[in-house]
Amino acid sequence: MCSGDKKLDVCIYDTTLRDGSQGEGLAFSVEDKLKVASKLDFLGVAYIEGGWPGSNPKDLEFFHRVPELDLKNARISAFGSTRRPGTNVKQDTNVKALLDAGVPVVAIVGKSWDFHVFRALETTLEENLAMIRETISYLKDMGLEVVFDAEHFFDGYKNNPDYALQVLASAGEAGADWLVLCDTNGGTLPWDLEEVIRAVKKENSVPLGIHVHNDNACAVVNSLTAVRLGITQVQGTMNGYGERCGNADLSAVIPNLELKMKKRCLPDNHLRHLTEVSHYVSEVANMPRHNSQPFVGYGAFAHKGGIHVSALLKDSLTYEHIDPEAVGNRRRVLVSELSGISNLLNKARELNLDVNLYDAETRKMIKKIKELENEGFQFEGADASLELLLRKAFGQYQDFFQLQNLKILIEKREDDGIGAEAMIKLKVNDETVHTAAEGDGPVNALDNALRKALTGFYPFIESMHLTDYKVRVLDGGEGTAAKVRVLIESADEKETWSTVGVSENIIEASWQALVDSLNYMLLKRKAQG
Amino acid sequence: MCSGDKKLDVCIYDTTLRDGSQGEGLAFSVEDKLKVASKLDFLGVAYIEGGWPGSNPKDLEFFHRVPELDLKNARISAFGSTRRPGTNVKQDTNVKALLDAGVPVVAIVGKSWDFHVFRALETTLEENLAMIRETISYLKDMGLEVVFDAEHFFDGYKNNPDYALQVLASAGEAGADWLVLCDTNGGTLPWDLEEVIRAVKKENSVPLGIHVHNDNACAVVNSLTAVRLGITQVQGTMNGYGERCGNADLSAVIPNLELKMKKRCLPDNHLRHLTEVSHYVSEVANMPRHNSQPFVGYGAFAHKGGIHVSALLKDSLTYEHIDPEAVGNRRRVLVSELSGISNLLNKARELNLDVNLYDAETRKMIKKIKELENEGFQFEGADASLELLLRKAFGQYQDFFQLQNLKILIEKREDDGIGAEAMIKLKVNDETVHTAAEGDGPVNALDNALRKALTGFYPFIESMHLTDYKVRVLDGGEGTAAKVRVLIESADEKETWSTVGVSENIIEASWQALVDSLNYMLLKRKAQG
Repeated sequence: MCSGDKKLDVCIYDTTLRDGSQGEGLAFSVEDKLKVASKLDFLGVAYIEGGWPGSNPKDLEFFHRVPELDLKNARISAFGSTRRPGTNVKQDTNVKALLDAGVPVVAIVGKSWDFHVFRALETTLEENLAMIRETISYLKDMGLEVVFDAEHFFDGYKNNPDYALQVLASAGEAGADWLVLCDTNGGTLPWDLEEVIRAVKKENSVPLGIHVHNDNACAVVNSLTAVRLGITQVQGTMNGYGERCGNADLSAVIPNLELKMKKRCLPDNHLRHLTEVSHYVSEVANMPRHNSQPFVGYGAFAHKGGIHVSALLKDSLTYEHIDPEAVGNRRRVLVSELSGISNLLNKARELNLDVNLYDAETRKMIKKIKELENEGFQFEGADASLELLLRKAFGQYQDFFQLQNLKILIEKREDDGIGAEAMIKLKVNDETVHTAAEGDGPVNALDNALRKALTGFYPFIESMHLTDYKVRVLDGGEGTAAKVRVLIESADEKETWSTVGVSENIIEASWQALVDSLNYMLLKRKAQG
Repeated sequence: MCSGDKKLDVCIYDTTLRDGSQGEGLAFSVEDKLKVASKLDFLGVAYIEGGWPGSNPKDLEFFHRVPELDLKNARISAFGSTRRPGTNVKQDTNVKALLDAGVPVVAIVGKSWDFHVFRALETTLEENLAMIRETISYLKDMGLEVVFDAEHFFDGYKNNPDYALQVLASAGEAGADWLVLCDTNGGTLPWDLEEVIRAVKKENSVPLGIHVHNDNACAVVNSLTAVRLGITQVQGTMNGYGERCGNADLSAVIPNLELKMKKRCLPDNHLRHLTEVSHYVSEVANMPRHNSQPFVGYGAFAHKGGIHVSALLKDSLTYEHIDPEAVGNRRRVLVSELSGISNLLNKARELNLDVNLYDAETRKMIKKIKELENEGFQFEGADASLELLLRKAFGQYQDFFQLQNLKILIEKREDDGIGAEAMIKLKVNDETVHTAAEGDGPVNALDNALRKALTGFYPFIESMHLTDYKVRVLDGGEGTAAKVRVLIESADEKETWSTVGVSENIIEASWQALVDSLNYMLLKRKAQG
């Protein structure tokens, strides 16, 4: 089963690079595709569907370069459709492109909803069956493993069960290695899906797969339901990317299968790479991460409620459904107005600070944090600022530079663009540095000038970049004089950290968050020597 | 059932303002809570859980101000816990705070997992039952509707089914109106949940509710499964906000119930407000929207694949599981935008503009609006900007002033505050006015200078003030060079209006929104003579 001799219960068929790339805002270059394929193989999926060579000629380059990757776990698959109505399969350009891809596995999509045969293909039910049969037979004769994707299978079965089953039978007789039941419009409820799968299983002995979309928020459960009924291939995408509401999210399907249903679908000890792979794919795809994404989200194991946290400190089972490390994620304790002091103490202990609730230093620090929170600071989204604050309270902090003067000039003229320029004077190690930089806006100019001033002293600052910048107006009723909170997320090649600033002046708030971000990085580097 | 005489099959119990606010990055002010409650009532949910008065004193203010809202559909509920171990319920501060809230419904959370009774509460199983019984009896004696939330019910049942059932029996005997089964850690699979619910139903006649978290991506299906088994109250949050991976997302639960399962849970014709309410709550919460969110996401009905689009043009059923308008969303075709025009034409007709789809002016205007939306403008929250745009297209617009030059200077010194100053030169009625003003920040200084320059010409500007100012970063990945959208809400003694601006420079975006706001007011005043 799957790709050879591994003893897996379920084969994961990843289509991030094909169906996933239909998602809004997603566009992979060939280099991107190679990177993602390599990372998916590292995770240990059984199949990687790399693209549609007949629809996108760029994908052929990917298939030709894939052998460079020396994959350990996954087989590469190319996607295409059955031959066109009324043509000879050997002449079909789409089928030819599949053979040109030079891969061991092909997936062929065919219609199984009679309505689609009439309305979209504009052909007869018989011709559609012939298209499926001939395309599969031909590709089997070429020695390929053939996956048949029965498009709209569940809608088709509802409308005309006999025809939908006939489609599967034709594909099976033609030699398909897999019959994949697709919920293409993503609207099927789990119990309706179950009924259809039971009917299919009665009539078929060919191994079955499932491919569902998430339009009614049921894609993960629908995939699991199928496995429960004996289906052995699950198609989906990393982080659920895909058209409209996306495909089944493999980053949720895989841990549910392995941890909750005890179905092996990755090589031994590979599940712990899941969070890393999910984040990597979102970086390459340049798609925002969802903080609350199950299993792999940055906040999936983040605890805020005070009673939750005090119970967690007693036993992590109390408010966690799995051990976060099983999927390579980690627990985070958020410090916020809703939480008790236990959150804070837990955080301080993580930093090896000698906190003690009965100690004056600790109480002063708690008071300070509460005051800042009342002013609008929010440390639950700004771990690095909180760490600096705690270190300051315990004398484990130093300033790496001092501001002497900062000016920002913004100028706009009639029918002309707008410019921003920042002039900055800093003291670093008793030296004075005075420089200026332009930017897209005042904060960007400030950021550019500050880095320019510091790079000479701390060259590794160049490896750091800002990955997110958020502004929240705290008291909207004050109009443009409102207080704002700025949250900045920064990253270097090793880690990601977040900092916060609050002021009525957005420049001041941004300055605070920028300074914290730089100081945090400098402190880390110093500790590492 | 639910809140009186409505013939609903399922009562929606919204806890966005309580459990939802445990989500990372979420913090509602009292004003925010009032706005959200009003909007949820507009959607037509049966219950709104407004907060936890015993844990957060700020929530009491919300409960005291709720009568201002004159709610049409929802009953307000306050959340609290059973009395503390070894105390008298009448002396319990948390229970007292519930009574102080002055609401008709209270939700009481109690432990149903024996492990939690020992580890978190550190008391005996008997005392826990007494805590539940006495708290509920007391609140029933006070004439309140009591919802009992059985925390960790599914984990508890797994560990000790007899005790979990005893907890429900105690709550029922004490007079609870609802017994709510909670999957607090969010790790239960639908078939395991089903088994437990079947066992509970055998032993209970009190109406049941379901409250699940989304840690294993099953929260929506788990909620639907419960309804399928006869449960009549569903607890969840708008957009699935909540601790860790969030609660069951009501924006997916509700349309699944109404459209797929034919269970009425909103008043007639209210489902079409769903998308609007979901977006509104995300704006007030200042939480990013997920483009691919089922049903209500901006991309939930966005079609990209070429074959999808051509089939859709033949028949929308081919690639859509429901009609997007049923939930107030709309179809978007990413290659050739054909949708959303009817709303626009309606708006133009409201303004007595002579629009006609076959007319070149109209088509130019539609094209312009689509371009602006692609750049990040969003007119659904900025009616006044949209109106100005429509009037411009139809020659019903004039500029009341022209910018000649604008400079803003921000200065910050070592150990000193930060100052902002704006210098502005405008042309008004062929006169030039050149002035300057200070402000708390650059945008405030700009606002002050602009008003100062115009007041001499249009004295009634003094009656206008900004009531809200929001900033949203559109592409966080660009760091401080990210594009931002500024939304401004303005009001005079008669009306409120909203305007929008978009730019990489926050000053430019604020300038656009400010200028629109002033021009809108001046245009209105002119029309009124």
